[in-house]
Amino acid sequence: MTKPAIPKGTRDFLPAQMAGRKYIFSVLQQTFEKYGFLPLETPAMELQETLRGKYGEEGNQLIFNILNSGDFLKDADTNAPLQSSKLLRQISKKALRYDLTVPLARVISMYPNEIVLPFRRYQMQPVWRADSPQKGRYQEFYQCDVDIAGTNSLTCEAELLCMIQDVFDTLKLPDITIKINHRQLLSGIAEQLELQDKETDVLVAIDKWDKIGTEGVLKELIQREINPEQAEQLLAMLSLKGNSEEILQELAQKLNTSHKAKQSIQDLQKVLSFVNAMQYSTQRIQTDITLARGLSYYTGIIIEVKANNVQMGSILGGGRYDKLVGMFSGKDITAVGISFGVDRIYDVLKEKNLLPVHTATAQVLVTQFNEVLLSNSLNILSALRKAGISAELYPEPKKIAKQFEYADKRGIPYVVIVGESEIQSGIYGLKELVTGTQKSLPLEEMITLLKNL
Amino acid sequence: MTKPAIPKGTRDFLPAQMAGRKYIFSVLQQTFEKYGFLPLETPAMELQETLRGKYGEEGNQLIFNILNSGDFLKDADTNAPLQSSKLLRQISKKALRYDLTVPLARVISMYPNEIVLPFRRYQMQPVWRADSPQKGRYQEFYQCDVDIAGTNSLTCEAELLCMIQDVFDTLKLPDITIKINHRQLLSGIAEQLELQDKETDVLVAIDKWDKIGTEGVLKELIQREINPEQAEQLLAMLSLKGNSEEILQELAQKLNTSHKAKQSIQDLQKVLSFVNAMQYSTQRIQTDITLARGLSYYTGIIIEVKANNVQMGSILGGGRYDKLVGMFSGKDITAVGISFGVDRIYDVLKEKNLLPVHTATAQVLVTQFNEVLLSNSLNILSALRKAGISAELYPEPKKIAKQFEYADKRGIPYVVIVGESEIQSGIYGLKELVTGTQKSLPLEEMITLLKNL
Repeated sequence: MTKPAIPKGTRDFLPAQMAGRKYIFSVLQQTFEKYGFLPLETPAMELQETLRGKYGEEGNQLIFNILNSGDFLKDADTNAPLQSSKLLRQISKKALRYDLTVPLARVISMYPNEIVLPFRRYQMQPVWRADSPQKGRYQEFYQCDVDIAGTNSLTCEAELLCMIQDVFDTLKLPDITIKINHRQLLSGIAEQLELQDKETDVLVAIDKWDKIGTEGVLKELIQREINPEQAEQLLAMLSLKGNSEEILQELAQKLNTSHKAKQSIQDLQKVLSFVNAMQYSTQRIQTDITLARGLSYYTGIIIEVKANNVQMGSILGGGRYDKLVGMFSGKDITAVGISFGVDRIYDVLKEKNLLPVHTATAQVLVTQFNEVLLSNSLNILSALRKAGISAELYPEPKKIAKQFEYADKRGIPYVVIVGESEIQSGIYGLKELVTGTQKSLPLEEMITLLKNL
Repeated sequence: MTKPAIPKGTRDFLPAQMAGRKYIFSVLQQTFEKYGFLPLETPAMELQETLRGKYGEEGNQLIFNILNSGDFLKDADTNAPLQSSKLLRQISKKALRYDLTVPLARVISMYPNEIVLPFRRYQMQPVWRADSPQKGRYQEFYQCDVDIAGTNSLTCEAELLCMIQDVFDTLKLPDITIKINHRQLLSGIAEQLELQDKETDVLVAIDKWDKIGTEGVLKELIQREINPEQAEQLLAMLSLKGNSEEILQELAQKLNTSHKAKQSIQDLQKVLSFVNAMQYSTQRIQTDITLARGLSYYTGIIIEVKANNVQMGSILGGGRYDKLVGMFSGKDITAVGISFGVDRIYDVLKEKNLLPVHTATAQVLVTQFNEVLLSNSLNILSALRKAGISAELYPEPKKIAKQFEYADKRGIPYVVIVGESEIQSGIYGLKELVTGTQKSLPLEEMITLLKNL
């Protein structure tokens, strides 16, 4: 018999990991709902026509396709020389969801009577991508998306910036940096430097700032035929120091001719002032004009979060995007949203020992010694549960050492000993496994004690 | 632009439905954890070799296969005449999970060091089946499974019978019937009547009892060459009246020569006595010797639940099965489990108006009238959220009627009015939309009032 396995890039979550994951999901959900976001779930399987052409050529390649059921070759043209790309259309009508944004767009277009715009929704479901698996990158993983569709009010961006802080404060991970930028600020800089026709070159070069530094970017700019004077001006802007408000003020002075730049600086300033109006500090929010996040997708403010002092990519990304949500209805519906990287957040919390120790296991194991005493064990088991205490019975009459060993392995902290003398006296032994201490108590007192732990 | 759609047999869950579903999942989860069951999640995608051959020929046909990524024909033999069944093996290495039992078996075999037997796990995840969709039957649906693997103690069956009652009592659907039977009792009846070689005929005939009644079963039995005397004896057993204990006692008298029958009657009696020892009534538990649930899968006690006075198939099924869990490890690992039919439970609760009215929407909408007043609105919005009240800002400065209309459509019960006079006086208007009443309150009093609702 060969040992079974799971597909590469997928994972099982055993009870110990589930406890940590459920904790993160529950913090996210509670915070989302406090901000008035509504839950949405969509099917894992979408029609090919819904997904195709939405993620660029590279994304298309990463979609997992589902074979039609039954004799899938029935309607396929198998006489012509076979090509995967051509046959695919004939044998696969469905595919697995690639993200949660396209399903959101589809839902908004499909249910115009049920869905009131602006629509505030959250969605926490797995997505599938046929990416080469590597550390921290999976073929099946959860996305936790929060979006507001149907309004261009900058209060939305500000709300998201506050909510991000609430989430990470609740997770006891306050030591984060929230980077923000504006897609039009990048265009504005190109405009100001009279490099409109080289905008992409500028973006590509400064996107590498993190990796190659000032010198590297300078070299790259000159390679891309940007003259040294312009390159120096650009680098001066990248090197601005100070808090977000200060950097924005300096940028406003430097970028005084570009309309796009002025507008986007005003937008960023407005968002920060809204954050302040909500009594949140802007200290963790850093204006970073090198932040691009893929260049083409976003149209307005861009957001990214990193955990400080941890070797880990961004744990959240997002921004405003104008084209995606309306694509099925043929209208422009502006939207802004963020996506929490649950897998990375889990890894960071684990590294910092911030995950709950409690593994969702029973709090108490009730012993079983023989068939005669069993009904007493069952009675006590049930009384504990009725009091809201998570309890489990050792299912077979075995030696007490074996039952302790089971509780220990399973991480159950307490054992109630239900033996003959205990039943006669009505005083039961309650053993705490970690300390080894044992108390003798009547049932009611035991329940009170366990409930107050 | 064509209106988008979703694959047949799949569903979107919009916020209103999500509220009801989340309520059911949360009752299930809390009850499962009170009984010491641990959460498990497995990937949607499993390897073909894990799933193939586990569900019979019919099941195999219903598995959704995932095409290999990239040029899937690369390694396929496309010269020979093409056949779907043969090509399938060459172009699909993965498939979607068909149930949660095979993944449980795989997990137990893959992680012998992490998983302590007996293993009590719950798993609430979607499964996929290429069944023809019809009312109440979907191609993508959730299963909520609870299993105990690795012990044959009948206390497990008893615990499950109590837990079922806890779940439906918590859901305020106490009017249910829990049917139980024992697979060996069916064999024992055949043995007693000296119909061992016709056991399948007997099972097939009595499985139809619900649909065709006594007369129909009699006719069917005679058609299957069972002599009328034996058929009458069998029918007498099917027609026993009384509570479970009484029926079991009568059966014990009638089935006094079959060892299998005696043993299984004892098992059922033991389970009922354990239920009593846990202080649960056995009133809703009905012994039904016609209950077979697919005939071959189960090896011990069989369980099924129906909601009384509702046109709906079973809302829960389960039982003990000895072969499945050990299939990957090559050992016999006995297990007993039940599966809650969440989709049907949702439909029953909806029909009986037992779903929560609360749709997880914000409790309060904060108005916005102009840019100057906006920072006050934001301040109040944030104060509400910090007090744990779910709140949302109307994102644009619009007329008050428009903002009320939005709150109304969205089902938000309260609106806080933040106008110029309110800000100057510090007394805000709080309008309850259903009644139309409006109170004037300072912020702190408003928060106290909303928190106490």
